[in-house]
Amino acid sequence: MSKPPDSSRRSERSRRAILDSALALVGEVGYNKLTIEAIAARAGVGKQTIYRWWPSKAAVLLDASLALSGEAWTETGWSGFPDTGDLAADLKSVLRATVDEFADPRYEAPARALTAAGATDPELAARFTEQLLEPQLALYEARLRTAREAGQLAADTDVRLVTEMLVGPLTYRWLMRTGPLTHAFTDALVDSVLGGVAGATAGGADDVAKVTVR
Amino acid sequence: MSKPPDSSRRSERSRRAILDSALALVGEVGYNKLTIEAIAARAGVGKQTIYRWWPSKAAVLLDASLALSGEAWTETGWSGFPDTGDLAADLKSVLRATVDEFADPRYEAPARALTAAGATDPELAARFTEQLLEPQLALYEARLRTAREAGQLAADTDVRLVTEMLVGPLTYRWLMRTGPLTHAFTDALVDSVLGGVAGATAGGADDVAKVTVR
Repeated sequence: MSKPPDSSRRSERSRRAILDSALALVGEVGYNKLTIEAIAARAGVGKQTIYRWWPSKAAVLLDASLALSGEAWTETGWSGFPDTGDLAADLKSVLRATVDEFADPRYEAPARALTAAGATDPELAARFTEQLLEPQLALYEARLRTAREAGQLAADTDVRLVTEMLVGPLTYRWLMRTGPLTHAFTDALVDSVLGGVAGATAGGADDVAKVTVR
Repeated sequence: MSKPPDSSRRSERSRRAILDSALALVGEVGYNKLTIEAIAARAGVGKQTIYRWWPSKAAVLLDASLALSGEAWTETGWSGFPDTGDLAADLKSVLRATVDEFADPRYEAPARALTAAGATDPELAARFTEQLLEPQLALYEARLRTAREAGQLAADTDVRLVTEMLVGPLTYRWLMRTGPLTHAFTDALVDSVLGGVAGATAGGADDVAKVTVR
């Protein structure tokens, strides 16, 4: 979306300052009141420096969020979606990390701002989804595909649906604030998604009978 | 939140005009650019008429959405959450209706605007959740509680969690536009939530073994 900045150290410093300023400002004033002018002033660069690299504030913020999400992974020593062979444990560990991320104001403010802006701006939403969200969803899907091949998921499992069954309720509770966002919540979510919630006499899932083996 | 308008027919006409104007305008300009002045002009009333009944544009929009959601239920002959005894069928029918609602621009534009505004405005979000969302979630919870009592859900089922497992992925896909919002999607969601997605060799849900009985 943007021309890469030239390789000098000064450019890289400016680029970082711009991205950091965008993240800080969006948390303070929200997406709608965010301006290129304010980002430039805070970063100590000219407006034209920003326009040389990014076409719009949305593009700046998207790059800033991508950089932030890359940093978060580096800080936590993230080395790819875990695959210990225990699907439930792996999903729980990733969802717990996401809960922690949502609790971090550095991450939460720009995430809320981008979500809010995207809710009413389809073009921004499409780029947000394609560049920030889809790569994350793809990691879940890959892990679920491995589990499906190992017979840990039903052979006809729709890995996209299962991914949204995990990420959807977490994002919903975060966005709508319908309850506390805790590790206990995401742990229970993983168990319920994998095991289902129907009792022994359920008529809902026609092809599956369940037996309690406590 | 607002003093009820006096009972004359003229007041009721003004009230309806204000709510309709708020819904139309928020779809056109978004929540941030929505003003009491513009609502008043479009409704053909004075600004003071609006301020007599509502303290803020958020309050107007919330009442407008409540009225709209009441109308939608009346139009479709809604008479409460269905309870045919078949939990899966009842959930599918309600989620299909929600998919249809999200596809209706009259409903979708204000819903997106309120969601966007609430994402970055905790006070508005709290009222949105309490007055608009929670009453809807409560209907799911009541139906799920009946099913739990009938043994169709596991005895220790957390009905709030299950409600968010149904509403969360639907809202996520709608908001993030990660895929088509279809009846097939919500039907599959209901089956997966009830039946779970784990295969026969899954180690995730410790206390549940599943046997395919096609």
